[in-house]
Amino acid sequence: MKKSLGSKTLIYPTPVWVVGTYDKDGKPNAMTIAWGGICCSKPPCVAISLREATYTYGNIIERKAFTVNVPSEEHAVKADYFGMVSGRNEDKFAATGLTPVKSEIVDAPYINEFSLILECRVIQTIQIGLHTQFIGEIMDVKADESVLNEKGMPDIEQVKPIIFTPETRNYYKIGDCLGAAFSIGKNIK
Amino acid sequence: MKKSLGSKTLIYPTPVWVVGTYDKDGKPNAMTIAWGGICCSKPPCVAISLREATYTYGNIIERKAFTVNVPSEEHAVKADYFGMVSGRNEDKFAATGLTPVKSEIVDAPYINEFSLILECRVIQTIQIGLHTQFIGEIMDVKADESVLNEKGMPDIEQVKPIIFTPETRNYYKIGDCLGAAFSIGKNIK
Repeated sequence: MKKSLGSKTLIYPTPVWVVGTYDKDGKPNAMTIAWGGICCSKPPCVAISLREATYTYGNIIERKAFTVNVPSEEHAVKADYFGMVSGRNEDKFAATGLTPVKSEIVDAPYINEFSLILECRVIQTIQIGLHTQFIGEIMDVKADESVLNEKGMPDIEQVKPIIFTPETRNYYKIGDCLGAAFSIGKNIK
Repeated sequence: MKKSLGSKTLIYPTPVWVVGTYDKDGKPNAMTIAWGGICCSKPPCVAISLREATYTYGNIIERKAFTVNVPSEEHAVKADYFGMVSGRNEDKFAATGLTPVKSEIVDAPYINEFSLILECRVIQTIQIGLHTQFIGEIMDVKADESVLNEKGMPDIEQVKPIIFTPETRNYYKIGDCLGAAFSIGKNIK
């Protein structure tokens, strides 16, 4: 029997991603989001949603660019911090000791210590409600060589990304592999 | 040292969600997606991206509604099947034995056997490129009582949602809890 829980942003899983931007003075900022996802294959695009009140929102409007940085389990505390304070009031890179690296492709910094990062330029801005959605074309993906598998692609078991649970508000690890996509369902066909 | 992997839809984690729709004749369909995410808190909205070539795309254009159904680990094979065949050619509910339930709120069916479902009406349609993004206002969230925690919210460890890894194309389970959001980062402040 299903119970109605009302109109809310309650679904699993949601990602934990850190958005990197520069402000108008060139100060790097990092903000954690869970409202986002891949939204197009060609061109490759990722969507992130931000409240207008955030410092990152103004930075993206100004610079038309952002990075998406994937924290691993070991960065959970820093990612949580990035989601709690505003870059308007604090230098979050200084506070965490993480290193902003200026992208050579887009006008935004990425986080050197995070193993998987996307460099994006804004191609659409969608007003929805409390949140505005920025659609970023993924100009390049960069990964630490230490997390690449034998085919040169990032191994999720090495990247160790974090899952966020809305409403219950916890972080989770990735678990075991369940099987190969576009494969395990073939027997039903 | 970071290696450039090129312009691609490569980020972790992405969700595995099954989109439920009716076609013009009222036949229920189910399609698995990984390109999506929450995109606004007020009104609560979820974004899903589809290629125009899919049967589900036409259904959503026609009905202006869809459900998002969260498969659990035990449904991985069926979710994989839902992503491989088109409802234009097959009756996917008949093939899997899953049960479509007509939503009383939106013009779309949800999957009775999945423990967490969202009922959505389309409020914006965004042309991006190969994919079109549908922004759905979440009119209600429903969950099986068996997956609710003591506060009446779905426990991710009971829902057991699935993670998809683009490029490496595997499914993963959820792992252990890492800590409480908006809490573990407080010491940095």
